[in-house]
Amino acid sequence: MSHLQKLYLNSRTKILIFAAMRIDIISAVPQLLDSPFSHSIIKRAADKGLAKVIVHDLRDYTKDKHKRIDDTPFGGGAGMVMTIQPIESCINKLKSERAYDEVIYMSPDGDLFNQKMANTMSSYENIIILCGHYKGVDDRVREHLITKEISVGDYVLTGGELAAAIVADSLIRLIPDVLGDETSALTDSFQDDLLAPPVYTRPAEYNGWKVPDVLRSGNDKLVDEWRMEKAIERTEQRRPGLLD
Amino acid sequence: MSHLQKLYLNSRTKILIFAAMRIDIISAVPQLLDSPFSHSIIKRAADKGLAKVIVHDLRDYTKDKHKRIDDTPFGGGAGMVMTIQPIESCINKLKSERAYDEVIYMSPDGDLFNQKMANTMSSYENIIILCGHYKGVDDRVREHLITKEISVGDYVLTGGELAAAIVADSLIRLIPDVLGDETSALTDSFQDDLLAPPVYTRPAEYNGWKVPDVLRSGNDKLVDEWRMEKAIERTEQRRPGLLD
Repeated sequence: MSHLQKLYLNSRTKILIFAAMRIDIISAVPQLLDSPFSHSIIKRAADKGLAKVIVHDLRDYTKDKHKRIDDTPFGGGAGMVMTIQPIESCINKLKSERAYDEVIYMSPDGDLFNQKMANTMSSYENIIILCGHYKGVDDRVREHLITKEISVGDYVLTGGELAAAIVADSLIRLIPDVLGDETSALTDSFQDDLLAPPVYTRPAEYNGWKVPDVLRSGNDKLVDEWRMEKAIERTEQRRPGLLD
Repeated sequence: MSHLQKLYLNSRTKILIFAAMRIDIISAVPQLLDSPFSHSIIKRAADKGLAKVIVHDLRDYTKDKHKRIDDTPFGGGAGMVMTIQPIESCINKLKSERAYDEVIYMSPDGDLFNQKMANTMSSYENIIILCGHYKGVDDRVREHLITKEISVGDYVLTGGELAAAIVADSLIRLIPDVLGDETSALTDSFQDDLLAPPVYTRPAEYNGWKVPDVLRSGNDKLVDEWRMEKAIERTEQRRPGLLD
C-alpha cells in the first residue's frame, strides 16, 4: 500500500485520497520522544494530516503484576533483556487494527539505514517501530515478530528511541507537501547520489570572508555549473563511494 | 583535556577530580531537544554530575531586528540558509568562557560517526555541536568556525538536532559510572569489532519458541563459547567489514 494516492471511482465521482503515513513506535521510555514529535516537521505533517506518529508505552501492555518489561539474561551477564509478552501484545493489538508494511526493530546490527531506504519506505502507509532498550529484546521477538531490522549507524545508543525518531523524521519529510518548499527535498544530499554543494547567504562579505563571485553573477547557467562542479568535488572528497 | 581524571596536588592534600563532560548544542529549534535530554541516560549522568548538555537558542544571539537567523541563498534556489552572525556570536561567547576540544557541525556530508569515534570523543571535556536546519549553514561558518564535521549516517534529516542528540547519547553512556552496570557498555556491539550475540530472558518457552539449551546449562564456559560463536556468526552475516 502507498500513502501517495489512491483513486476511488464510482459512477459519478472521481476522488483522489491521500492516506496519511502512520508510524507506531513501541518504547520502554516513551516520554523521551515527547518533544521531537511535537515540534518541527513532524508536527507540521501531523497538522496537515499527512503523517501521524503514535508512541506506545510498553508498560501499558505487560501482564506482569509488578509492571516489569525486562528480566535478567539466560546464561548470566550484565544488563537487562526486554521480555517477549508486552512486545507481542502491543504488536498483535496494532496488527489487529490495520495492516502494516513492516514491523521494524531498531538495532545496531540491523540493515544500515540510508537515503535509498528512506525513499522506498516513504511510500509505506503503516509501520511499527520497536525500540530496544537495556541490552535489547529477547531474540525470539526478532525471529518471530519483526519483519525488518534497521540500524541508523555503526554506534551504540542507550536505546532505539532516537534512532526511531531519525527514521520517522527522514521518512516524513519526503512525503509530498510536508516540506514548505516542494523542491527543497529534491536538492538534498544523496538524492542524485551527490552531496549538496555549499550554500551561502547575506552578507556577501563578513569578517573579510567572501561569497564566491559566481553566485552573485546573476547568470543562472554559470551558477548551475558551479554547483554541479562543487557537488561532484565534495562527493569525491567526502563520499567517493556514492559515485560508484 | 580529558574528563577522566585530573590530579591536583598541594602540600597537604591529594584530590582526584572528575570533571564532567560538557556538551553545548546550538540550535534553531532548541525545544525539539527538551525531552531527549530530560530523561534516561543523559538525565542520570547530569544528576550524577558526570555530564552536562546545554542547548542554546540561536535566536538569542541574532542582532537582526526581526530576530531572523536565516536568509535566502546567493545564486537562488529553494530553501533557507542559516546566517553567520548569530552562530559566530554564540560560538565566540562559549569559547570566551572555556576551552573546547572541538566545534562540531552535524551534516550529512561530515565524517561518518562510528563507535571508534565515540570512544575517542568520550574522553573530551568540552564540545560544541552546531545543528544545521533548513538548507544548512552559510559555508563560511564551516570553513572558519567549525573544527570537525560529523554525519550520523547517509540520509537527510530536517535538522541536525536528532543527530546531535545521538552523538550526545552515545558519548555520555561511555563515561565511566554513567551506565548502571559497569560492564554493560563493554559487552556492546562494536566494542571488540563484533556485533553482540543474541540475548534471551524468561520464560524459557513462549508460544513454543524455546531458548537455546546451552544458555540454561549452567556451564559458563559453554555459554561463553556459544556467545563468541554467535557474535562472530552474526558479524559475518551482517557486518563482514568489521572483521577485516
